[in-house]
Amino acid sequence: MEEEMASSASNNVVNIYPLSSYYFGSKEASPEKMETLSDRIERMKSNYAENGLRTCVEGVLLVELFRHPHVLLLQVKNSFFKLPGGRLRSGESDIDGLKRKLSSRLSVSESVIDSEWQIGECLGMWWRTDFETLLHPYLLPNVLSPKECLKLFLVKLPRNQRFVVPKNLKMLAVPLCQIHGSHKTYGPVISGIPQLLSKFSFNIIDD
Amino acid sequence: MEEEMASSASNNVVNIYPLSSYYFGSKEASPEKMETLSDRIERMKSNYAENGLRTCVEGVLLVELFRHPHVLLLQVKNSFFKLPGGRLRSGESDIDGLKRKLSSRLSVSESVIDSEWQIGECLGMWWRTDFETLLHPYLLPNVLSPKECLKLFLVKLPRNQRFVVPKNLKMLAVPLCQIHGSHKTYGPVISGIPQLLSKFSFNIIDD
Repeated sequence: MEEEMASSASNNVVNIYPLSSYYFGSKEASPEKMETLSDRIERMKSNYAENGLRTCVEGVLLVELFRHPHVLLLQVKNSFFKLPGGRLRSGESDIDGLKRKLSSRLSVSESVIDSEWQIGECLGMWWRTDFETLLHPYLLPNVLSPKECLKLFLVKLPRNQRFVVPKNLKMLAVPLCQIHGSHKTYGPVISGIPQLLSKFSFNIIDD
Repeated sequence: MEEEMASSASNNVVNIYPLSSYYFGSKEASPEKMETLSDRIERMKSNYAENGLRTCVEGVLLVELFRHPHVLLLQVKNSFFKLPGGRLRSGESDIDGLKRKLSSRLSVSESVIDSEWQIGECLGMWWRTDFETLLHPYLLPNVLSPKECLKLFLVKLPRNQRFVVPKNLKMLAVPLCQIHGSHKTYGPVISGIPQLLSKFSFNIIDD
Protein backbone atom coordinates (compact mmCIF):
# COMPACT_ATOMS: atom_id res chain seq x y z
CA MET A 1 0.00 0.00 0.00
CA GLU A 2 2.80 2.40 0.82
CA GLU A 3 4.32 1.86 -2.60
CA GLU A 4 1.04 2.51 -4.29
CA MET A 5 0.72 5.78 -2.40
CA ALA A 6 4.24 6.78 -3.27
CA SER A 7 3.60 6.30 -6.96
CA SER A 8 0.31 8.14 -6.87
CA ALA A 9 1.90 10.92 -4.84
CA SER A 10 4.39 11.54 -7.61
CA ASN A 11 1.48 12.17 -9.99
CA ASN A 12 0.32 14.90 -7.67
CA VAL A 13 3.02 17.32 -8.78
CA VAL A 14 1.90 19.83 -11.40
CA ASN A 15 4.32 22.05 -13.28
CA ILE A 16 3.12 25.60 -13.67
CA TYR A 17 4.73 28.36 -15.73
CA PRO A 18 4.59 32.14 -15.36
CA LEU A 19 1.68 34.03 -16.85
CA SER A 20 4.28 36.12 -18.68
CA SER A 21 5.39 33.11 -20.70
CA TYR A 22 2.01 32.97 -22.45
CA TYR A 23 0.79 35.14 -25.31
CA PHE A 24 -2.77 36.42 -25.24
CA GLY A 25 -4.43 37.66 -28.41
CA SER A 26 -8.00 38.12 -29.51
CA LYS A 27 -10.20 36.92 -32.32
CA GLU A 28 -13.70 37.49 -33.64
CA ALA A 29 -16.45 37.40 -31.03
CA SER A 30 -17.91 33.97 -30.41
CA PRO A 31 -21.67 33.51 -30.65
CA GLU A 32 -22.33 33.69 -26.92
CA LYS A 33 -25.96 33.16 -26.16
CA MET A 34 -27.43 36.42 -24.97
CA GLU A 35 -30.40 35.05 -23.16
CA THR A 36 -32.39 35.43 -20.00
CA LEU A 37 -32.44 32.73 -17.36
CA SER A 38 -35.88 31.58 -18.49
CA ASP A 39 -34.67 31.46 -22.12
CA ARG A 40 -31.78 29.36 -20.95
CA ILE A 41 -34.05 26.95 -19.10
CA GLU A 42 -36.27 26.66 -22.17
CA ARG A 43 -33.25 25.94 -24.35
CA MET A 44 -32.01 23.28 -21.90
CA LYS A 45 -35.45 21.67 -21.87
CA SER A 46 -35.71 21.44 -25.63
CA ASN A 47 -32.11 20.21 -25.91
CA TYR A 48 -32.86 17.58 -23.31
CA ALA A 49 -36.02 16.46 -25.10
CA GLU A 50 -33.95 16.02 -28.24
CA ASN A 51 -30.64 14.65 -26.93
CA GLY A 52 -31.12 13.53 -23.33
CA LEU A 53 -28.48 14.07 -20.67
CA ARG A 54 -26.20 16.94 -21.52
CA THR A 55 -22.54 16.31 -20.71
CA CYS A 56 -20.24 19.29 -20.41
CA VAL A 57 -16.50 19.26 -19.98
CA GLU A 58 -14.45 22.17 -18.67
CA GLY A 59 -10.72 22.72 -18.26
CA VAL A 60 -8.80 24.02 -15.26
CA LEU A 61 -5.74 25.79 -16.67
CA LEU A 62 -3.15 27.06 -14.22
CA VAL A 63 -0.42 29.68 -14.49
CA GLU A 64 1.95 31.17 -11.96
CA LEU A 65 1.85 34.78 -10.82
CA PHE A 66 3.44 36.11 -7.62
CA ARG A 67 4.53 32.52 -6.94
CA HIS A 68 0.92 31.43 -6.42
CA PRO A 69 -1.22 29.33 -8.78
CA HIS A 70 -3.83 31.27 -10.75
CA VAL A 71 -6.74 29.74 -12.67
CA LEU A 72 -7.50 31.04 -16.16
CA LEU A 73 -11.14 32.12 -16.25
CA LEU A 74 -13.25 33.62 -18.99
CA GLN A 75 -15.45 36.55 -18.09
CA VAL A 76 -18.60 37.18 -20.09
CA LYS A 77 -19.72 40.82 -20.50
CA ASN A 78 -17.94 41.96 -17.32
CA SER A 79 -20.31 39.83 -15.33
CA PHE A 80 -20.14 36.10 -14.75
CA PHE A 81 -17.10 33.88 -14.93
CA LYS A 82 -16.72 30.55 -16.60
CA LEU A 83 -14.13 27.93 -17.29
CA PRO A 84 -13.20 27.19 -20.90
CA GLY A 85 -15.16 24.19 -22.15
CA GLY A 86 -18.62 23.27 -23.27
CA ARG A 87 -21.05 20.61 -24.31
CA LEU A 88 -19.97 17.32 -25.81
CA ARG A 89 -21.29 16.31 -29.20
CA SER A 90 -23.22 13.09 -29.40
CA GLY A 91 -20.80 10.17 -29.15
CA GLU A 92 -17.78 12.41 -28.51
CA SER A 93 -15.34 11.39 -25.75
CA ASP A 94 -14.66 13.70 -22.79
CA ILE A 95 -11.08 14.22 -23.91
CA ASP A 96 -11.83 14.88 -27.58
CA GLY A 97 -14.69 17.20 -26.69
CA LEU A 98 -12.61 19.17 -24.23
CA LYS A 99 -9.76 19.53 -26.74
CA ARG A 100 -12.22 20.78 -29.36
CA LYS A 101 -13.80 23.24 -26.95
CA LEU A 102 -10.44 24.51 -25.67
CA SER A 103 -9.34 25.15 -29.25
CA SER A 104 -12.61 26.87 -30.07
CA ARG A 105 -12.33 29.13 -27.02
CA LEU A 106 -8.62 29.65 -26.75
CA SER A 107 -6.92 28.95 -30.09
CA VAL A 108 -6.93 30.59 -33.49
CA SER A 109 -9.64 28.25 -34.66
CA GLU A 110 -11.57 25.19 -33.52
CA SER A 111 -9.94 23.12 -36.22
CA VAL A 112 -6.41 24.04 -35.22
CA ILE A 113 -4.58 20.76 -34.97
CA ASP A 114 -1.19 21.85 -33.73
CA SER A 115 -2.63 22.75 -30.37
CA GLU A 116 -1.74 19.67 -28.41
CA TRP A 117 -3.86 20.08 -25.34
CA GLN A 118 -2.70 17.80 -22.55
CA ILE A 119 -5.76 16.74 -20.63
CA GLY A 120 -5.01 15.48 -17.13
CA GLU A 121 -7.21 13.82 -14.57
CA CYS A 122 -10.85 14.44 -13.84
CA LEU A 123 -10.98 16.69 -10.77
CA GLY A 124 -14.69 16.56 -10.06
CA MET A 125 -18.18 16.07 -11.44
CA TRP A 126 -21.31 18.10 -10.86
CA TRP A 127 -24.88 17.11 -11.63
CA ARG A 128 -27.96 19.12 -12.51
CA THR A 129 -31.00 17.15 -11.50
CA ASP A 130 -33.64 19.66 -12.61
CA PHE A 131 -33.53 22.43 -15.15
CA GLU A 132 -34.27 25.02 -12.50
CA THR A 133 -31.81 23.97 -9.79
CA LEU A 134 -28.13 24.40 -9.11
CA LEU A 135 -25.47 21.82 -9.79
CA HIS A 136 -24.52 19.40 -7.01
CA PRO A 137 -21.32 17.39 -6.53
CA TYR A 138 -23.26 14.13 -6.16
CA LEU A 139 -26.19 12.38 -7.75
CA LEU A 140 -29.05 11.33 -5.51
CA PRO A 141 -30.49 7.83 -6.05
CA ASN A 142 -34.01 9.10 -6.64
CA VAL A 143 -32.81 11.11 -9.63
CA LEU A 144 -33.40 8.75 -12.50
CA SER A 145 -32.92 11.24 -15.30
CA PRO A 146 -30.33 13.89 -14.48
CA LYS A 147 -30.33 16.76 -16.93
CA GLU A 148 -26.66 17.68 -17.02
CA CYS A 149 -23.30 16.32 -15.94
CA LEU A 150 -20.36 18.72 -15.76
CA LYS A 151 -16.86 17.29 -15.55
CA LEU A 152 -13.80 19.34 -14.64
CA PHE A 153 -10.42 18.27 -15.97
CA LEU A 154 -6.96 19.48 -15.12
CA VAL A 155 -5.28 20.78 -18.29
CA LYS A 156 -1.49 20.65 -18.23
CA LEU A 157 -0.19 23.72 -20.02
CA PRO A 158 3.16 23.64 -21.79
CA ARG A 159 5.90 26.18 -21.11
CA ASN A 160 4.65 28.44 -23.90
CA GLN A 161 1.34 28.80 -25.64
CA ARG A 162 -0.61 31.30 -27.70
CA PHE A 163 -4.10 31.91 -26.39
CA VAL A 164 -6.48 33.60 -28.81
CA VAL A 165 -9.68 34.56 -27.05
CA PRO A 166 -12.95 35.71 -28.65
CA LYS A 167 -13.31 39.50 -28.36
CA ASN A 168 -16.52 39.27 -26.36
CA LEU A 169 -14.81 37.27 -23.64
CA LYS A 170 -12.14 38.48 -21.27
CA MET A 171 -9.52 36.08 -20.00
CA LEU A 172 -8.38 36.56 -16.43
CA ALA A 173 -5.86 34.82 -14.22
CA VAL A 174 -7.42 34.61 -10.76
CA PRO A 175 -5.43 33.42 -7.72
CA LEU A 176 -6.61 30.35 -5.82
CA CYS A 177 -6.72 32.40 -2.63
CA GLN A 178 -9.24 34.77 -4.21
CA ILE A 179 -11.41 32.01 -5.67
CA HIS A 180 -11.61 29.89 -2.51
CA GLY A 181 -14.95 30.32 -0.81
CA SER A 182 -16.03 33.16 -3.11
CA HIS A 183 -19.21 31.35 -3.98
CA LYS A 184 -21.13 34.55 -4.71
CA THR A 185 -18.65 35.84 -7.26
CA TYR A 186 -17.62 32.63 -8.96
CA GLY A 187 -20.48 30.21 -8.27
CA PRO A 188 -20.24 26.84 -6.55
CA VAL A 189 -18.18 25.04 -9.20
CA ILE A 190 -15.36 27.54 -9.68
CA SER A 191 -15.20 28.53 -6.00
CA GLY A 192 -14.56 24.88 -5.13
CA ILE A 193 -11.55 24.53 -7.46
CA PRO A 194 -8.91 25.38 -4.81
CA GLN A 195 -10.14 22.41 -2.76
CA LEU A 196 -10.10 20.10 -5.78
CA LEU A 197 -6.50 21.17 -6.44
CA SER A 198 -5.38 21.07 -2.82
CA LYS A 199 -3.88 17.57 -3.08
CA PHE A 200 -1.41 18.77 -5.72
CA SER A 201 2.00 20.27 -5.18
CA PHE A 202 2.84 22.98 -7.64
CA ASN A 203 6.25 23.04 -9.20
CA ILE A 204 6.80 26.62 -10.31
CA ILE A 205 9.14 26.76 -13.30
CA ASP A 206 10.23 30.30 -14.01
CA ASP A 207 13.54 29.98 -15.76
CA MET B 1 -3.39 10.43 -23.23
CA GLU B 2 -6.73 8.69 -23.73
CA GLU B 3 -5.22 5.48 -22.42
CA GLU B 4 -3.85 7.22 -19.39
CA MET B 5 -7.26 8.67 -18.66
CA ALA B 6 -8.94 5.32 -19.12
CA SER B 7 -6.67 3.71 -16.57
CA SER B 8 -7.07 6.51 -14.07
CA ALA B 9 -10.83 6.53 -14.63
CA SER B 10 -11.03 2.91 -13.57
CA ASN B 11 -9.43 3.89 -10.27
CA ASN B 12 -12.28 6.31 -9.70
CA VAL B 13 -14.73 3.57 -8.74
CA VAL B 14 -15.17 3.06 -5.01
CA ASN B 15 -17.02 0.10 -3.55
CA ILE B 16 -19.29 1.01 -0.67
CA TYR B 17 -21.19 -1.35 1.60
CA PRO B 18 -24.39 -0.86 3.60
CA LEU B 19 -24.15 0.74 7.02
CA SER B 20 -25.99 -2.34 8.31
CA SER B 21 -23.05 -4.56 7.40
CA TYR B 22 -20.89 -2.87 10.04
CA TYR B 23 -20.91 -3.43 13.78
CA PHE B 24 -20.66 -0.45 16.11
CA GLY B 25 -19.62 -0.90 19.71
CA SER B 26 -18.16 1.38 22.34
CA LYS B 27 -15.08 1.46 24.53
CA GLU B 28 -13.66 3.55 27.34
CA ALA B 29 -13.74 7.29 26.78
CA SER B 30 -10.67 8.67 25.01
CA PRO B 31 -8.80 11.55 26.60
CA GLU B 32 -10.38 14.28 24.51
CA LYS B 33 -8.94 17.63 25.32
CA MET B 34 -11.58 19.70 27.07
CA GLU B 35 -10.15 23.09 26.38
CA THR B 36 -11.16 26.56 25.38
CA LEU B 37 -10.14 28.01 22.05
CA SER B 38 -7.42 30.07 23.68
CA ASP B 39 -6.13 26.98 25.53
CA ARG B 40 -6.03 25.21 22.20
CA ILE B 41 -4.08 28.03 20.58
CA GLU B 42 -1.61 28.03 23.49
CA ARG B 43 -1.17 24.28 23.15
CA MET B 44 -0.59 24.57 19.40
CA LYS B 45 1.99 27.30 20.01
CA SER B 46 3.96 25.32 22.52
CA ASN B 47 3.76 22.17 20.37
CA TYR B 48 4.98 24.17 17.40
CA ALA B 49 7.88 25.63 19.40
CA GLU B 50 8.88 22.09 20.31
CA ASN B 51 8.15 20.11 17.15
CA GLY B 52 7.63 22.58 14.30
CA LEU B 53 5.01 22.00 11.60
CA ARG B 54 2.22 19.77 12.83
CA THR B 55 0.99 17.26 10.27
CA CYS B 56 -2.42 15.71 10.76
CA VAL B 57 -3.99 12.94 8.76
CA GLU B 58 -7.69 12.17 8.64
CA GLY B 59 -9.71 9.43 7.00
CA VAL B 60 -12.83 9.68 4.87
CA LEU B 61 -14.78 6.45 5.46
CA LEU B 62 -17.88 5.83 3.37
CA VAL B 63 -20.89 3.61 3.86
CA GLU B 64 -24.13 3.22 1.96
CA LEU B 65 -27.53 4.15 3.33
CA PHE B 66 -30.65 4.79 1.22
CA ARG B 67 -28.46 4.11 -1.81
CA HIS B 68 -26.46 7.32 -1.17
CA PRO B 69 -22.88 7.56 0.17
CA HIS B 70 -22.60 8.62 3.81
CA VAL B 71 -19.42 9.79 5.53
CA LEU B 72 -18.60 8.44 8.99
CA LEU B 73 -18.09 11.40 11.32
CA LEU B 74 -17.28 11.56 15.00
CA GLN B 75 -19.25 14.01 17.09
CA VAL B 76 -17.70 15.41 20.24
CA LYS B 77 -20.06 16.24 23.12
CA ASN B 78 -23.09 16.73 20.87
CA SER B 79 -21.36 19.69 19.34
CA PHE B 80 -18.65 19.74 16.70
CA PHE B 81 -17.90 17.05 14.14
CA LYS B 82 -14.59 15.61 13.17
CA LEU B 83 -13.11 12.99 10.92
CA PRO B 84 -11.23 10.10 12.52
CA GLY B 85 -7.50 10.83 12.50
CA GLY B 86 -4.95 12.92 14.29
CA ARG B 87 -1.42 14.16 14.51
CA LEU B 88 1.53 12.24 13.13
CA ARG B 89 4.35 11.28 15.44
CA SER B 90 7.77 12.59 14.56
CA GLY B 91 9.10 10.62 11.60
CA GLU B 92 5.90 8.66 11.10
CA SER B 93 4.57 8.25 7.54
CA ASP B 94 1.12 9.54 6.59
CA ILE B 95 -0.14 6.02 6.01
CA ASP B 96 1.26 4.51 9.21
CA GLY B 97 0.04 7.45 11.28
CA LEU B 98 -3.44 7.31 9.81
CA LYS B 99 -3.67 3.54 10.41
CA ARG B 100 -2.59 4.07 14.03
CA LYS B 101 -5.08 6.86 14.55
CA LEU B 102 -7.93 4.95 12.92
CA SER B 103 -7.24 1.99 15.21
CA SER B 104 -7.06 4.25 18.25
CA ARG B 105 -10.38 5.91 17.36
CA LEU B 106 -12.30 3.07 15.82
CA SER B 107 -10.85 -0.27 16.90
CA VAL B 108 -10.67 -2.17 20.14
CA SER B 109 -7.20 -0.78 20.79
CA GLU B 110 -4.54 1.27 19.09
CA SER B 111 -2.24 -1.71 18.97
CA VAL B 112 -4.75 -3.95 17.23
CA ILE B 113 -2.88 -5.43 14.33
CA ASP B 114 -5.58 -7.41 12.61
CA SER B 115 -7.26 -4.23 11.54
CA GLU B 116 -6.01 -3.96 8.01
CA TRP B 117 -6.95 -0.41 7.15
CA GLN B 118 -6.79 0.18 3.41
CA ILE B 119 -5.65 3.73 2.87
CA GLY B 120 -6.47 5.11 -0.57
CA GLU B 121 -5.49 8.31 -2.28
CA CYS B 122 -4.95 11.72 -0.75
CA LEU B 123 -8.11 13.72 -1.45
CA GLY B 124 -6.94 17.12 -0.33
CA MET B 125 -4.62 19.13 1.90
CA TRP B 126 -5.37 22.09 4.11
CA TRP B 127 -2.90 24.50 5.66
CA ARG B 128 -2.97 26.58 8.81
CA THR B 129 -0.70 29.55 8.36
CA ASP B 130 -1.26 31.15 11.76
CA PHE B 131 -2.38 29.71 15.05
CA GLU B 132 -5.41 31.98 15.10
CA THR B 133 -6.70 31.50 11.56
CA LEU B 134 -8.72 28.94 9.68
CA LEU B 135 -7.31 26.27 7.44
CA HIS B 136 -6.96 27.01 3.72
CA PRO B 137 -6.74 24.60 0.77
CA TYR B 138 -3.54 26.23 -0.51
CA LEU B 139 -0.32 27.60 0.87
CA LEU B 140 0.60 31.18 0.04
CA PRO B 141 4.21 31.85 -0.99
CA ASN B 142 4.78 34.43 1.74
CA VAL B 143 4.03 31.82 4.39
CA LEU B 144 7.46 30.50 5.21
CA SER B 145 6.52 28.60 8.34
CA PRO B 146 3.05 27.10 8.17
CA LYS B 147 1.82 25.79 11.50
CA GLU B 148 -0.25 22.82 10.42
CA CYS B 149 -0.87 20.66 7.40
CA LEU B 150 -4.00 18.51 7.35
CA LYS B 151 -4.24 15.73 4.79
CA LEU B 152 -7.46 13.88 3.98
CA PHE B 153 -7.25 10.32 2.72
CA LEU B 154 -9.91 8.06 1.30
CA VAL B 155 -10.16 4.92 3.43
CA LYS B 156 -11.49 1.88 1.63
CA LEU B 157 -13.67 -0.09 4.01
CA PRO B 158 -14.05 -3.84 3.64
CA ARG B 159 -17.44 -5.53 3.41
CA ASN B 160 -17.55 -6.06 7.18
CA GLN B 161 -15.82 -4.37 10.06
CA ARG B 162 -16.19 -3.88 13.79
CA PHE B 163 -15.99 -0.26 14.86
CA VAL B 164 -15.37 0.33 18.54
CA VAL B 165 -15.76 4.00 19.36
CA PRO B 166 -14.75 5.77 22.60
CA LYS B 167 -17.81 6.42 24.78
CA ASN B 168 -17.34 10.18 24.74
CA LEU B 169 -17.58 10.28 20.98
CA LYS B 170 -20.62 9.55 18.87
CA MET B 171 -20.23 8.06 15.43
CA LEU B 172 -22.64 9.25 12.79
CA ALA B 173 -23.17 8.42 9.14
CA VAL B 174 -23.97 11.69 7.39
CA PRO B 175 -25.11 11.80 3.75
CA LEU B 176 -23.04 13.72 1.21
CA CYS B 177 -26.12 15.77 0.30
CA GLN B 178 -26.36 17.01 3.89
CA ILE B 179 -22.66 17.78 4.23
CA HIS B 180 -22.31 19.68 0.97
CA GLY B 181 -22.20 23.40 1.56
CA SER B 182 -23.04 23.07 5.28
CA HIS B 183 -20.00 25.06 6.24
CA LYS B 184 -21.56 26.33 9.46
CA THR B 185 -22.36 22.90 10.83
CA TYR B 186 -19.38 20.92 9.63
CA GLY B 187 -16.66 23.51 9.05
CA PRO B 188 -14.79 24.18 5.81
CA VAL B 189 -12.90 20.88 5.62
CA ILE B 190 -15.77 18.42 6.12
CA SER B 191 -18.29 20.49 4.16
CA GLY B 192 -15.96 20.30 1.15
CA ILE B 193 -15.74 16.49 1.14
CA PRO B 194 -18.61 15.95 -1.33
CA GLN B 195 -16.68 17.99 -3.88
CA LEU B 196 -13.47 16.08 -3.23
CA LEU B 197 -15.38 12.83 -3.78
CA SER B 198 -17.35 14.04 -6.78
CA LYS B 199 -14.96 12.51 -9.32
CA PHE B 200 -15.64 9.01 -7.96
CA SER B 201 -18.36 6.64 -9.00
CA PHE B 202 -19.76 4.63 -6.12
CA ASN B 203 -20.39 0.97 -6.59
CA ILE B 204 -23.00 0.05 -4.00
CA ILE B 205 -22.65 -3.57 -2.97
CA ASP B 206 -25.61 -4.71 -0.93
CA ASP B 207 -25.80 -8.43 -1.45
